[in-house]
Amino acid sequence: MKFCSHCGSARLAFTIPEGDTLPRHVCRDCGTIHYQNPKVVVGCLPVWEDKVLLCRRAIEPRHGLWTLPAGFLEDHETLEAGAMRETLEEADARVELQNLYVMISIVHVSQVFVMFRSRLLDLDFGPGTESIEVKLFAEDEIPWENLAFRTISRTLRNFFLDRRDGAWPLRLSSIERSRFALRTG
Amino acid sequence: MKFCSHCGSARLAFTIPEGDTLPRHVCRDCGTIHYQNPKVVVGCLPVWEDKVLLCRRAIEPRHGLWTLPAGFLEDHETLEAGAMRETLEEADARVELQNLYVMISIVHVSQVFVMFRSRLLDLDFGPGTESIEVKLFAEDEIPWENLAFRTISRTLRNFFLDRRDGAWPLRLSSIERSRFALRTG
Repeated sequence: MKFCSHCGSARLAFTIPEGDTLPRHVCRDCGTIHYQNPKVVVGCLPVWEDKVLLCRRAIEPRHGLWTLPAGFLEDHETLEAGAMRETLEEADARVELQNLYVMISIVHVSQVFVMFRSRLLDLDFGPGTESIEVKLFAEDEIPWENLAFRTISRTLRNFFLDRRDGAWPLRLSSIERSRFALRTG
Repeated sequence: MKFCSHCGSARLAFTIPEGDTLPRHVCRDCGTIHYQNPKVVVGCLPVWEDKVLLCRRAIEPRHGLWTLPAGFLEDHETLEAGAMRETLEEADARVELQNLYVMISIVHVSQVFVMFRSRLLDLDFGPGTESIEVKLFAEDEIPWENLAFRTISRTLRNFFLDRRDGAWPLRLSSIERSRFALRTG
């Protein structure tokens, strides 16, 4: 943020407003406080018999790696509608949502990841514009080394473990540092 | 949004970018696409014996009405940390989080409401700067007619019903229209 989106001034300060506790971008001319908050990433784990549906990413970041259909929740959209929309856009797949299954606070990028378990309604799926290919995988076929994000590997690990028990408690967790920080730390 | 926060231009269009499906604020000069997404409101239902802790709002909107401690999740903050911070700020109360209990997509204001059930750790609470007073209420003392938001009444109704069963399933729902639209509609 270099300019005030309200008045166009370049005189922005990054300072703690009176009565607040955290620094914000504040316009020195019109006084507007520009808050920044985490975004919600919402998606689906589509299941067909003993298999799950993954998409290979046609876009950056992590082009060519495998993911679950997910993306940013839009304004004026429910979590459920967002999950189904992303599944349709990325995998051209229709699902019935089952339960809100995984939530992960991704602290370093300020995202909240929300994943529904879902039942794939038919096999009439295929890559949307953001996917190279879309494919069903049994547990022993999952490309663990080629998954796009830690949220995805965590969701899939939980899924295959919980499936043995046949119970789907909400799996709430957080990711506090980047994969790269952990590797070198 | 009247000016581009990246280059300061006033030449903003509200249009669907190529490859996108929804209109966005796009700068005609530098090309920056300004996405807007829902915010997360996170908070706590603090419980002490058979009572719950409510705060009477010292700020707008809904000044003077009763609410549960909750507020916007901050960048680089987990859901759990946000819920505990808001409880400390608004009620000067320390809690132990129990389960993620209520999630409500508030469509007309583009918010996702996330509420944890929690155990109040001591009776050493009191109003923060955003509260007039903070008080424990038994079920038959809840000021149902003077609650600040529908998310709060829904959370409390769920809580007292689920308490009879002693089970706390995630209560996922949405609010699609404003209270005023419903009144006149």
